[in-house]
Amino acid sequence: MCAAATTFKQDDHSDLQRACTLSHFSHVLFGGNNQGLQGISQRPISPTLKERYTLSTMVNQVQRVDGSWQTSKSDSSGASNSGESSKESSRCSTPLLDADRSDRLREKMRKRMESGDPWFSLEFFPPRTASGAVNLISRFDRMGSGGPLFIDITWHPAGDPGSNKETSSMMIASTAVNYCGLESVLHLTCANQSQETITGYLTKAKQLGLKNIMALRGDPLGTDWEDEEEGFNYATDLVKHIRSEFDDYFDICVAGYPTGHPEAQSYAEDLQHLKEKVDAGADFIITQLFFRADTFLKFLRDCRAIGITVPILPGVFPIQGYQSLRQLVKLSKLEVPEEIMEVIEPIKDNDAAIRSYGIHQAVEMCRVLLDSGVVPGLHFYTLNREVATTEVLRQLGLWIEDPRRPLPWATSANPKRKVEDVRPIFWASRPKSYIYRTQDWDDFPNGRWGNSSSPAFGELNDYYLFYLKSKSSKDALLKMWGEELTSETSVFEVFTSYITAQVNRGGHKVMCLPWNDDALATETNLLKDELEKVNRRGVLTINSQPNINGKPSSDPIAGWGPAGGYVFQKAYLEFFTSSENVTALLKVLKKYEPRVNYHIVNVQGHNMTNAHDMQPNAVTWGIFPGREIVQPTVVDPVSFMYWKDEAFALWIEQWAKLYEDESPSRMIIKYIHDNYFLVNLVDNDFPLDSCLWQVLDDMFELLDAPPEVVGDG
Amino acid sequence: MCAAATTFKQDDHSDLQRACTLSHFSHVLFGGNNQGLQGISQRPISPTLKERYTLSTMVNQVQRVDGSWQTSKSDSSGASNSGESSKESSRCSTPLLDADRSDRLREKMRKRMESGDPWFSLEFFPPRTASGAVNLISRFDRMGSGGPLFIDITWHPAGDPGSNKETSSMMIASTAVNYCGLESVLHLTCANQSQETITGYLTKAKQLGLKNIMALRGDPLGTDWEDEEEGFNYATDLVKHIRSEFDDYFDICVAGYPTGHPEAQSYAEDLQHLKEKVDAGADFIITQLFFRADTFLKFLRDCRAIGITVPILPGVFPIQGYQSLRQLVKLSKLEVPEEIMEVIEPIKDNDAAIRSYGIHQAVEMCRVLLDSGVVPGLHFYTLNREVATTEVLRQLGLWIEDPRRPLPWATSANPKRKVEDVRPIFWASRPKSYIYRTQDWDDFPNGRWGNSSSPAFGELNDYYLFYLKSKSSKDALLKMWGEELTSETSVFEVFTSYITAQVNRGGHKVMCLPWNDDALATETNLLKDELEKVNRRGVLTINSQPNINGKPSSDPIAGWGPAGGYVFQKAYLEFFTSSENVTALLKVLKKYEPRVNYHIVNVQGHNMTNAHDMQPNAVTWGIFPGREIVQPTVVDPVSFMYWKDEAFALWIEQWAKLYEDESPSRMIIKYIHDNYFLVNLVDNDFPLDSCLWQVLDDMFELLDAPPEVVGDG
Repeated sequence: MCAAATTFKQDDHSDLQRACTLSHFSHVLFGGNNQGLQGISQRPISPTLKERYTLSTMVNQVQRVDGSWQTSKSDSSGASNSGESSKESSRCSTPLLDADRSDRLREKMRKRMESGDPWFSLEFFPPRTASGAVNLISRFDRMGSGGPLFIDITWHPAGDPGSNKETSSMMIASTAVNYCGLESVLHLTCANQSQETITGYLTKAKQLGLKNIMALRGDPLGTDWEDEEEGFNYATDLVKHIRSEFDDYFDICVAGYPTGHPEAQSYAEDLQHLKEKVDAGADFIITQLFFRADTFLKFLRDCRAIGITVPILPGVFPIQGYQSLRQLVKLSKLEVPEEIMEVIEPIKDNDAAIRSYGIHQAVEMCRVLLDSGVVPGLHFYTLNREVATTEVLRQLGLWIEDPRRPLPWATSANPKRKVEDVRPIFWASRPKSYIYRTQDWDDFPNGRWGNSSSPAFGELNDYYLFYLKSKSSKDALLKMWGEELTSETSVFEVFTSYITAQVNRGGHKVMCLPWNDDALATETNLLKDELEKVNRRGVLTINSQPNINGKPSSDPIAGWGPAGGYVFQKAYLEFFTSSENVTALLKVLKKYEPRVNYHIVNVQGHNMTNAHDMQPNAVTWGIFPGREIVQPTVVDPVSFMYWKDEAFALWIEQWAKLYEDESPSRMIIKYIHDNYFLVNLVDNDFPLDSCLWQVLDDMFELLDAPPEVVGDG
Repeated sequence: MCAAATTFKQDDHSDLQRACTLSHFSHVLFGGNNQGLQGISQRPISPTLKERYTLSTMVNQVQRVDGSWQTSKSDSSGASNSGESSKESSRCSTPLLDADRSDRLREKMRKRMESGDPWFSLEFFPPRTASGAVNLISRFDRMGSGGPLFIDITWHPAGDPGSNKETSSMMIASTAVNYCGLESVLHLTCANQSQETITGYLTKAKQLGLKNIMALRGDPLGTDWEDEEEGFNYATDLVKHIRSEFDDYFDICVAGYPTGHPEAQSYAEDLQHLKEKVDAGADFIITQLFFRADTFLKFLRDCRAIGITVPILPGVFPIQGYQSLRQLVKLSKLEVPEEIMEVIEPIKDNDAAIRSYGIHQAVEMCRVLLDSGVVPGLHFYTLNREVATTEVLRQLGLWIEDPRRPLPWATSANPKRKVEDVRPIFWASRPKSYIYRTQDWDDFPNGRWGNSSSPAFGELNDYYLFYLKSKSSKDALLKMWGEELTSETSVFEVFTSYITAQVNRGGHKVMCLPWNDDALATETNLLKDELEKVNRRGVLTINSQPNINGKPSSDPIAGWGPAGGYVFQKAYLEFFTSSENVTALLKVLKKYEPRVNYHIVNVQGHNMTNAHDMQPNAVTWGIFPGREIVQPTVVDPVSFMYWKDEAFALWIEQWAKLYEDESPSRMIIKYIHDNYFLVNLVDNDFPLDSCLWQVLDDMFELLDAPPEVVGDG
């Protein structure tokens, strides 16, 4: 027995600049207790929090992080898992869209094995701080885009893993599933837990939309195991418990030890234990790490020989530094092979060289594994880092450079939402907010949005503390949006700088706006010149899309959905603008009947529209082989009124509040909030060039005309 | 009091070549008893029946017509009514599609009045014979295409009007609603009926999907009225009864008498009776016919003056012949004005001249009515004839020459089906059969067909006696399809003649096939050359559509749906062909993966497809301003298996059974039925020229190749 904890050196990702336990990883490797970790876990880490409000609010409630966080023993064995994307090869003949979303993990594996399409999966551990959590979620989004079949989240018994804390294993896994759309496996350890506690965790996981469990024993409390009469003594007990209490609901993964579990009497006995776990109901196996392909391949043969037939995924650990490897060697019972030590020792002070070697070594080993023809997928211990794993996957050709999007927006992996394929366009830049606000829906729009006379969107005050918060610090925001605003024009300039990606007056790039916490979407870039022009004149755009008349679904920018299809869009533009502009705009819009539909509303809800029957207008749709039409985005007049509240609130919550009460800057934002209108325009004539710019040109022309002409307008 | 019955001279429509009572019309005009009719009603008419099976099977059961039919007293006042179409002017700004289908009649009237868009309606009486019924239904389809707001069907107390006989008022109205998609008003008279009987009629009407009732008193049994204590004495009683028993379910129409009801003490008293009917709950009024616009306009003013505010529709009667007019004068108390008699008397032997004058006179009068600005719509007493009324409407500009189809297929007006907007393409040429087979569905596909794992299509044996019957006689069919078939090639020739509209070997044009009881659709004509070529070689096509990549929804051939939209299609082809051809076809289709989806099935249900997930494939869709996507036609693999049964059965029921048992001709058709496959092909790549012809060319090439090449294929 030994505890596994490794201090990592500074990486390129600041949120990982801390000592941390190897989480699940530790257990897979060593299954020890946490004695060796005490020194590390008690170091004061991240004493201040960048973010006061936490990820747990994504699911349930707003909670403050209570400062320091005790790292300690950890356990389990990993499988990581992600989203919809699958490789081209398995996409062509069958439209995967729906099947892929509704299949359970073992079914996805079966299909990928049948089509000979190898996958990869990624393991992460829960972060220690709220800001770490925010960063990890961004990492999920980025690494999810490479097309992992699933990710997995390790279980930290000492980290309140089943709580609603934003950093708990439960909440991180829930966020990955619900908000990042990643097929996720939650680790769970049973040592020293009552059946009731375990059932409670599983019930909560199910409620949150989690569908897969990695069943592990975990570390004992003392130095030695003492079998408990009523409790769980082996992972097998946990597997049986899950099957007995939850029938076939969960897909279950268990850990395999290519060189035998350190506690096992023998390699052969350990194989028998593994067989017991599988016989108890496990669906697949992820192994502890190893350094030679042969180690795994022999293990695989041995498993098959005793009748283990489920998929067995090799756990791959790209060496990322000398210190971490040395610690691994010291704490674990695994031996680093001679040939690896011989390479590393001479370059031990050269981090870059070691990382580079680690990538090389992992790629070589993975190639042997894949070429064997008996390895359906590779599992990566990422240590929450991106670079090494991503590079290995790129070199192996498994990383999807140009991910096929199943829908124009990121889908959720919660089984409750598996049929969802229509959303209002308004939340395009705030999909997590949309998912949050609709989390209590029992049904999700499928095929058509329908007449949503009263969609029950969650109230703003349930979530805005977290959701209206920017990822950037107050200082950074002030630099981007202006330390001091002098007029509405100062605000126009901020929008213009964001659109053009040019520095503002103060020399800072505007990387985000309250309505867009990321840089401009590639697609929106197509409209850059027009957007710049109108923002300069106070048409403050927050959402737009160009018209598209049948581009292939494989188009790198506009494409989505299965191969062989065509995607379409109606031009859409959404902006805030002054009431003077709106007066002119309404006159101009008469000329564009019935081509242009509009909705114009102020913060009080005064609403002007020419879409009187309040039907949704489909603005994005796709035609695919052998499928019904998919229309994933609509302009829905009813939900626009809910979005309106959120869009106006962002002026105050994210921008005005950066300034002192009663300060001129704050009053300017407040003025805009109180007096501007939120406008959306749809050009229904999608085969023609968008007329929306012409509409705005006409509006400007009318505004620029001498007063008497305005009178005639 | 007097009875109204008029013998009409031969018209251009053979099914109307019979004496008949003026049905409802009689009552509106004169409200008399039926004494004057005896001579006419007892004449033997249509002693033989062309059609043994009857329209009532459209709704419920197969019934034989029992020969002669007693015409006698009739009554009511008319309103005719039809389908979805509305005039351009009211279509532009709002997509009417759904609103128009779900609005009740009085709501449609209100909207048309608001938009200043005058309508017309058409009155018909039930036919006497089953073949008359078949012809009247065809007339409904033709006259429905001109865009009436509604039609109405008169009530014949002596004709078993509430029965399931194919010629009953109830069944004709039900057919108009359910199968012809016409908004329909059913007349109902209450004289000498018990409350229970009346409630029974109304309950049945409601069950059949009828939503509008014209409430009339009807003729008394004797020569004079005797008030009944318990019964209905006035139409007002019926209106009250409908409202009391059925609340607001029905829209109710009542009759108005511009010159006063013949029985009324005075014009003023009659107006008061009318006001009572309206106060009791009537929604609108249709008047008895009149000859001068002033008569109606004065009546209208008088109605308004005493507080009648509901719409009042003038009943227009185009004079169609001297005899009929003379009889009208003789039997009615209405006076034909001098100026009309002066024109007619000199030309009384010239039917054409009188009809021509009748049209002129009606047009002139209608123009005055419409120009008055107080007439929202015109009601026509058609006497079940097309020419005069259609011509009047054409000259008035009310007839929709290029009817806008709300969907590519004819919708049903049954309120149960009002949301229906998706159907399988298979029944494209047999829409009434589809409506029949799905009449028991509780929900209809709306927006998407969805995964119809087990759609409950009505069994073939419930309806095939009527539905598999052609409108043509056995003799005509034998002339078209061959008195004697000598080989499969004889069959190929029949199909080819149908496609080319050329005469067959025997010199007869092939106007229909078992799967297409009408001439080739205009759209299919676009594919004529290709279709001819493949039919000649034994690819026996029964359904097809070309690909369309975004034609305006106003396109005269391909267009449908509201204005300002675009319609799309995937190329579709469905045919029977031999198993040899199928073997070659399957080889060829491998080259067209995944572009072409196919389903190939024989009569035993042996099914080959490359659409393994059994999802429906949308093959017709439309994009409209301010709406969600509409996808009215799909290729659904599950319902294809139900269609397959019907399609194969038509070989035997309609074709093979024309020949003697064991005859060579019958054996040839039987052989095809037993051995051919039914194939459907979809080219998913709708923006490109259809590849389906190339697929068939490749198949022929493979079949023509020397044997060794076939072996390699």
